[in-house]
Amino acid sequence: MRTALYPGTFDPITNGHLDLVKRALRLFDRLIVAVGTARDKAPLFTIDERVEFIRAAVRGIGDVEVIPFEGLLVDVVRGAGAVAIIRGLREVSDFEYEFQMALMNRRLASEIETVFLMPSERYTYLDSTIVKEVVMLGGDVEGLVPEPVQEALLTKRRNR
Amino acid sequence: MRTALYPGTFDPITNGHLDLVKRALRLFDRLIVAVGTARDKAPLFTIDERVEFIRAAVRGIGDVEVIPFEGLLVDVVRGAGAVAIIRGLREVSDFEYEFQMALMNRRLASEIETVFLMPSERYTYLDSTIVKEVVMLGGDVEGLVPEPVQEALLTKRRNR
Amino acid sequence: MRTALYPGTFDPITNGHLDLVKRALRLFDRLIVAVGTARDKAPLFTIDERVEFIRAAVRGIGDVEVIPFEGLLVDVVRGAGAVAIIRGLREVSDFEYEFQMALMNRRLASEIETVFLMPSERYTYLDSTIVKEVVMLGGDVEGLVPEPVQEALLTKRRNR
Amino acid sequence: MRTALYPGTFDPITNGHLDLVKRALRLFDRLIVAVGTARDKAPLFTIDERVEFIRAAVRGIGDVEVIPFEGLLVDVVRGAGAVAIIRGLREVSDFEYEFQMALMNRRLASEIETVFLMPSERYTYLDSTIVKEVVMLGGDVEGLVPEPVQEALLTKRRNR
Amino acid sequence: MRTALYPGTFDPITNGHLDLVKRALRLFDRLIVAVGTARDKAPLFTIDERVEFIRAAVRGIGDVEVIPFEGLLVDVVRGAGAVAIIRGLREVSDFEYEFQMALMNRRLASEIETVFLMPSERYTYLDSTIVKEVVMLGGDVEGLVPEPVQEALLTKRRNR
Amino acid sequence: MRTALYPGTFDPITNGHLDLVKRALRLFDRLIVAVGTARDKAPLFTIDERVEFIRAAVRGIGDVEVIPFEGLLVDVVRGAGAVAIIRGLREVSDFEYEFQMALMNRRLASEIETVFLMPSERYTYLDSTIVKEVVMLGGDVEGLVPEPVQEALLTKRRNR
Repeated sequence: MRTALYPGTFDPITNGHLDLVKRALRLFDRLIVAVGTARDKAPLFTIDERVEFIRAAVRGIGDVEVIPFEGLLVDVVRGAGAVAIIRGLREVSDFEYEFQMALMNRRLASEIETVFLMPSERYTYLDSTIVKEVVMLGGDVEGLVPEPVQEALLTKRRNR
Repeated sequence: MRTALYPGTFDPITNGHLDLVKRALRLFDRLIVAVGTARDKAPLFTIDERVEFIRAAVRGIGDVEVIPFEGLLVDVVRGAGAVAIIRGLREVSDFEYEFQMALMNRRLASEIETVFLMPSERYTYLDSTIVKEVVMLGGDVEGLVPEPVQEALLTKRRNR
Repeated sequence: MRTALYPGTFDPITNGHLDLVKRALRLFDRLIVAVGTARDKAPLFTIDERVEFIRAAVRGIGDVEVIPFEGLLVDVVRGAGAVAIIRGLREVSDFEYEFQMALMNRRLASEIETVFLMPSERYTYLDSTIVKEVVMLGGDVEGLVPEPVQEALLTKRRNR
Repeated sequence: MRTALYPGTFDPITNGHLDLVKRALRLFDRLIVAVGTARDKAPLFTIDERVEFIRAAVRGIGDVEVIPFEGLLVDVVRGAGAVAIIRGLREVSDFEYEFQMALMNRRLASEIETVFLMPSERYTYLDSTIVKEVVMLGGDVEGLVPEPVQEALLTKRRNR
Repeated sequence: MRTALYPGTFDPITNGHLDLVKRALRLFDRLIVAVGTARDKAPLFTIDERVEFIRAAVRGIGDVEVIPFEGLLVDVVRGAGAVAIIRGLREVSDFEYEFQMALMNRRLASEIETVFLMPSERYTYLDSTIVKEVVMLGGDVEGLVPEPVQEALLTKRRNR
Repeated sequence: MRTALYPGTFDPITNGHLDLVKRALRLFDRLIVAVGTARDKAPLFTIDERVEFIRAAVRGIGDVEVIPFEGLLVDVVRGAGAVAIIRGLREVSDFEYEFQMALMNRRLASEIETVFLMPSERYTYLDSTIVKEVVMLGGDVEGLVPEPVQEALLTKRRNR
C-alpha cells in the first residue's frame, strides 16, 4: 500500500485542488491532504476552517485524510509513512518555485519523491488568491470552489 | 465605434504606459485609462495625483478619458461600454500573470476580449516600481516618465 | 472601418484558429485570413486546400476574407489596408517567437500593430502539428478541427 | 498492483533516463519502458539496439519490462494496463511541450494520468542529443551513459 | 587590472554565493562583494553580521574586498573603479528580473557591463530565503552555508 | 592577460553579434571569435565568407582574432589559452539551451567559465535566421548587419 501527501495552504480549497485530489487517488492507495498553518501569511480562514472545508469536500471520494501541519514538510511526510509529495503544475513560474522546493526536499529526505500532476485545463487560471480577490470585489466564483466555501467567502465579504 | 479600456495602478505613469496608450488609439476609436485605487498597495501618489498625471500626459493625443476605479474590472469595462481590455506584454512572467487575469475576466464576462500589445523595446525594462526605486536612490529617470511626474518624484525624494 | 490580418500556415485550420477568428471579429470591422504558401515546410495540404478549408469554416460568421500569400508579411498587411496583425498566444515559447517576429515587423512597418489574443483554454494544447500527428497514428480529433478537415485528414491517413 | 509506462525514443538511454526509472519504481509496482520506433527522426541506433541497451541497464533493479512501440501512445498504455505515463521534467521548454502532449493524451484517454518526476540535478543538462553530439566531436561521456552505450557510441564514431 | 563587483543582500551568504565568488575571481583581477543594507527587507542578520560572515568565508581565496553599500548600485560600481557587475543566473524568473535591472543599470551607466555567471548545478535550488526557512522549521543545512553561518542560524532558531 | 572566446555559426554576423564583441573587449584583454563550420546546418555562406565578414567588421576595434573551428568547443578554448566562453543572452529559450551547453562544457573542462552578456535592447529580436528570412522575402535589413554582409545578402537574393 502506498500513501502520498498533498501539502498546501488551501486558503480556501478550490475545485482545482479537488481535481488534483481525485487524480492522485488513481495513482496511490491513500492520500493525506496536509494543511499548513501558514501563520506568517495571515490566511483568510483559520487552520480549523480550512481543514474542515477540505474534509467536507473529499467525503466519499476515496481514502483521504486531512491533517493540519507545522514544521518541516519532509518530517510530516516521513511521519505519515508517505512515499510521495503531490504537487500541481499549472504554469512556468509555478514550475520554478516547485522545482526549488522539490530539490530542497530531496536533499532533506532523498527517499521521498515529488510527483507533479497536471490539473484540468479548466482550472489553469485558478488559485486561492484570485478566488478571494474576485469575491471581495463583488464577483461570482460559482463552480470554482465547493459550495460551503463559496458561502463562507460571501459571509466574509458581507462582514468586511 | 469601439472603446477599449486600459486598466492599471499607474503609480506613476511612465513613458512605457504612454507608448501603449498611443498604440491602442490606432486600433480603437476611444480609450479609457482606468486607474485602480490600489489601497492595499500603499501607492506613492494618491489616486487623484495619478489620474491627474495621466490627464496631463494624454492631452491632445486622441480620444482618451482617464477615470479612477474601484471594484471588479469587468464591471468597469461593461459600465464604460468597452469591448476590450488593453494590456502590455513585456516579458514571460508578465505573460503568466496577465494570462491568469485574462482567463478569469473572460469567465466573469465572456463578451470582453483582453488584447495584448507590445510596448517599444526601448521600454522593455521599464515599470513604475523600478522608476520609483531609481529616483529614491538618487538616480536620474529623465526620458522614462513625463516631465511633471519626474518633478513630483524629485519632490518626494527631497521630502523623505 | 478597421481591418486586421490574421496570418498563418493553417495546415490545416483547427478549432483553435477558428476561435481566434471569432474573437478578432469582435474587435475589428473586417478580418483577412492570410494563408502562407509555406513551400519550405512541405505542408500536408496544398495552399488551395488550406484556403478552401478556411473559407468553408468561416462562412457566415462575419466579414472575413481568406487569401493565399507569399513574400514579406508587412507588404501583405499594407496592401490589404490593415492596421493590425492578429496572433494567438498560447504559451511561453509561443510568446518568445511571436515577440521576435512582432519586433521585426514593427521595424519594417512601424504603423502596423501586432495584437495578441488569447484562445479559449479548451484549445491551449491544440496546434496543427499535434492534430496531424494524432490522426496519422490512428487517434480521433473530433471536435478539434472542422468536419471537412477531419474527413480530409482521415482520407490522407487511408492513402498513406 | 499499479503499472506505469515510461515512453521515449531513448537514442540512446542515458543515466538521466535510468535515474528516472529508479524513481518511478518507488511509486509504482511495475514499470514498462516503451521505446518508440522514431522512424522519421532517423535514430542513431536501431530500435532493437535501443531496447537491448535498456534491458541490459535495468537488469536487477526491479520489475521493469522494455518494449518497442509504434502508433498512438495512449493505445500502448491501455494495452499494457498502465494507469500512468511517466515523464521527466528538466526545464521550462520541456515543460511546455510535455504539457501539450499530456493534455492531448488526457483528451484521448481521460483515465490515464501523466506523472512528472524530477531527475537528479546532476542530470539537468543531460539528454540523448547532447551525448551524441559530444561523442561525435571527440568528447568523453563517461558517467553520463551506461558502459555498453558508451562503447557503442565510440564504435559509431570510429566507423563514421 | 580589472575589478568586478558582486552585489547582493547576502542574508546570509550561502555556498552558492561562494561558488560564484570563486568563479568571478578566475575572470577578474579583483572582486568587491557589496552587501546592500536592505533596510526595507527586514533582514535576519545585521549589515555588520552579513559583511563579517562573507569576510570570514572569502579569507585566503583571492583578492576579495567586502563592503556594505547604500544608494544606487552604479554609483558604488563607479566609485570602486569596477568594470563589471557580477550576477548569478539560476533560473528563468531570475533571468527576467536580472535582465530588467541590468538594462536599467546600463541606462544609468553605459560603461558598466553586467556579467552573468552560472553557479554549480549543486546549488541550483539554493538561495538565502530557502536556507532560512529550512533552518527555522528545524531542518539541516550543513553543506549549504559556511559553518559560522550555520551556527548563527541555529542560535537564531533557539532564541526565537 | 586574459583571453575570451566567442563561438558561433555567424551565418552571417549581425550588428547584435558585433555589439557583443565590443562588450566582451571591455572585460577581457583579447577576444577570439570562433566560427563553427556548421556543416550539418547547410549555412548560406561558406566558412571562409563568414570568417571574412567578421574580420572586416572587427577591424580596428581592439585585439580580436577570428578563426574557423571544428570539433569540440572546449578543445578550441583550451588550445587558444582562453579562460572564458562568451555567450549572448537574449531571451528565455536562449537561456535554456545556453545553460545546457554551458553545464556540459563545464563538465568537459571545469576550468573554463561561460560568461553571459546582454546585447543592447535594440538587438533583442535580431538573429542571423530572421535577417536571412527578411532579405529573401524582399525586406530591408539596413542597420541590422554590417554593410558588406547586406550587399552579399542582396546578391544571394538576386541569384536565387
